[in-house]
Amino acid sequence: MAQKAAVGILGLGTVGSGVIRILEDHRQELTHQTGCEIYAKKILVQDASKQRSVNVEGTTLTENAADVLQDPEIQIVIEVMGGIEESRNYILQSLQSKKHVITANKDVMALHGTELLQAAEENGCWLLYEASVAGGIPVIRGMTEGLAGDRISRIMGIMNGTTNYILTKMFQDERDYDEVLVEAQELGFAESDPTSDVDGLDAARKIAILARLGFSMNVELEDVEVEGIRGVTTEDMQYCAQLGYSLKLIGLAKRVEDRIELTVQPMLIPNDHPLASVQDEYNAVYIHGEAVGETMFYGPGAGSLPTATAIVSDLTAVVKNMMLGAVGSTVSKPLHTKALQNNEEVESKYFIRLHVKDQTGTFDDLSSLFKKEDVGFDKLQQWPLEEENGAASEVVIITHSTNRAAYERIYHELENMDVVIDVKSTYRVEGGKVS
Amino acid sequence: MAQKAAVGILGLGTVGSGVIRILEDHRQELTHQTGCEIYAKKILVQDASKQRSVNVEGTTLTENAADVLQDPEIQIVIEVMGGIEESRNYILQSLQSKKHVITANKDVMALHGTELLQAAEENGCWLLYEASVAGGIPVIRGMTEGLAGDRISRIMGIMNGTTNYILTKMFQDERDYDEVLVEAQELGFAESDPTSDVDGLDAARKIAILARLGFSMNVELEDVEVEGIRGVTTEDMQYCAQLGYSLKLIGLAKRVEDRIELTVQPMLIPNDHPLASVQDEYNAVYIHGEAVGETMFYGPGAGSLPTATAIVSDLTAVVKNMMLGAVGSTVSKPLHTKALQNNEEVESKYFIRLHVKDQTGTFDDLSSLFKKEDVGFDKLQQWPLEEENGAASEVVIITHSTNRAAYERIYHELENMDVVIDVKSTYRVEGGKVS
Repeated sequence: MAQKAAVGILGLGTVGSGVIRILEDHRQELTHQTGCEIYAKKILVQDASKQRSVNVEGTTLTENAADVLQDPEIQIVIEVMGGIEESRNYILQSLQSKKHVITANKDVMALHGTELLQAAEENGCWLLYEASVAGGIPVIRGMTEGLAGDRISRIMGIMNGTTNYILTKMFQDERDYDEVLVEAQELGFAESDPTSDVDGLDAARKIAILARLGFSMNVELEDVEVEGIRGVTTEDMQYCAQLGYSLKLIGLAKRVEDRIELTVQPMLIPNDHPLASVQDEYNAVYIHGEAVGETMFYGPGAGSLPTATAIVSDLTAVVKNMMLGAVGSTVSKPLHTKALQNNEEVESKYFIRLHVKDQTGTFDDLSSLFKKEDVGFDKLQQWPLEEENGAASEVVIITHSTNRAAYERIYHELENMDVVIDVKSTYRVEGGKVS
Repeated sequence: MAQKAAVGILGLGTVGSGVIRILEDHRQELTHQTGCEIYAKKILVQDASKQRSVNVEGTTLTENAADVLQDPEIQIVIEVMGGIEESRNYILQSLQSKKHVITANKDVMALHGTELLQAAEENGCWLLYEASVAGGIPVIRGMTEGLAGDRISRIMGIMNGTTNYILTKMFQDERDYDEVLVEAQELGFAESDPTSDVDGLDAARKIAILARLGFSMNVELEDVEVEGIRGVTTEDMQYCAQLGYSLKLIGLAKRVEDRIELTVQPMLIPNDHPLASVQDEYNAVYIHGEAVGETMFYGPGAGSLPTATAIVSDLTAVVKNMMLGAVGSTVSKPLHTKALQNNEEVESKYFIRLHVKDQTGTFDDLSSLFKKEDVGFDKLQQWPLEEENGAASEVVIITHSTNRAAYERIYHELENMDVVIDVKSTYRVEGGKVS
């Protein structure tokens, strides 16, 4: 006769329903793997009388959080209600009552992860959050356990399905951002208020969570510099393709010695980089470790059952530990003090697209400027432009690696140069070989 | 003052040296994560007097296995000596002495995994083998823990770097197998005796290991049908490319309800499938789970430090458990009884390339044959051939999905048909949407 583990669930929306479904459909596998019968004892809902699409027979639905949080039989709490303050509060209460917590909440983990992980450690509880980053992809486990003992030097992720879907369609169909966004909204790939996705905030939360783990530093959300995809044009994408690159919204965490950089922005990725072929709403996280070299984890970044799979994997880990009589958890304080790179230290290549006057000396002016800042050209293309206002050319440059301070000085001067009509667009270029 | 964990290592070749290097270089991280100082107490070597490229100060090198296996202080044994009978013997002895075992040995795990895992369970020990499949890629952990509770329906892996390197170069440079093999040998990507790689045996061991875990069945190596890449031509690869496919050596494990199929063979993969863009010596394992959908794990499949990373990740897991006072392990007996699909059940699409006589009625003969077996055409191309022996055509067919029995009857008839000059090549086509 197998033992039983009572679970409390906060929330019964898309993800919560997915968890219930997996617990029921895969009961035999779960019991076999853990040696324990896992069952949802109580679920916190907004309306206990509402009809449910999943079978909640034998489970108490309650509108009162205390019913779950104060039930001494419940040793594991799964938080899938979303939101920030209330969730944080319930997670803290659970940990303080020595309950293990599993959450899918990237907002809470990005904003309050440091505090919550500390509470978990103090109470000897697990606080697991595989589902908070890249949905069904076991990237947190892959990085913290699969690459345990390695030293992570770079994390690059396509971690927002909405923006990757939009960029994929913009490129494939040569259609504008606005048009594709509307279609994505109709198809359910984008929310009616897409701000959090298209402005990069969602991806920023995820890269903050991964960087905290990967670099073992108390990274905070405000350490991430964020730029979204609203400014990306299909024109830019076609130029990138000509040069052998794909334009993707990348969450980047880079470590050079003990100093790190965190950013989310549209970037050019070489087409032979494994991230370049990640299409549509799929997510992928590329990790470079000193010992392992290049790895990538690919899969669905959202959805009811994929996200629930990640939660159930955390749940299985906790139950296995309980069954083996493990005491406490291995949540641990960061090993390193956070140190962010400054503008002189952030190194990157850049894509710069300009409209310039087609007159003798233009190119000399341009090249003098780059030479002054000691920035070389990796790739360069120039075409004549069909413009009304006199002879002009389009110039596309990919620079060699440089520091951001030099790049910003160049950018500023380009904007004010007489021969430059317009700086059309600039992007970072990442994904070259890690030195 | 941190606790200490004494480790015994069997073998100090490429992988063993990598383990020593990581234990030394990443000591601080490992101690931080586990709360325990891990050190190599004894290493079994063939020649204890030989100069070593890694620092083994403080470690006893011994030529006598019993020094390691009978040391009561050593609680964890790492087997990286390779070979089969001796390794199996040492692993068994270690488990019987209640020592946890970590191995990189795919041969032993493929041939004797069932026996060894049973011994581990009986003795309450861990037997971990992340390094035995796809080197540095944490795919075993990803599948068994990250997708715990999901039901795996398909595993497709590019799990042999040598053959993937050869196929990549054959395609990119349009060069013949023999020529590329010699180059791969010179570059160290292929062994001087490449049999185990190019004939698919290495990949077969790995898919057997993954299928045993993924399907929770006592899969044995002889259940895997194996075909290597010696027969692949650059011509075939170019035809595949025209039709939108890549030709890859795939280890495939497929489950339909409770019956499975295991095979290693060159297959056509659609170019938009994530496995299609895995180039050179890289490995990747694509896993379809009922709940999670499509995931893929990508990275280096071999090499000293990548493989050692996988071993250290297993080591970290065992030490963490020891530190938490966990008793026993969660190695578990297979849940399901093995059941292999028969020829009527194995479903696939096929690529068939033929030379046929260019005469009235040829196509009618061909199409009657396929119709008789109820096999439709998905794609079809025909060109005139420039042949000496009269008018002829080349026909390339990709069928709709069919069972293997029907395919084999068609193949047999094609070989004996009057209008068919030659069946040039046939391959399975996999990687379509999982139904």
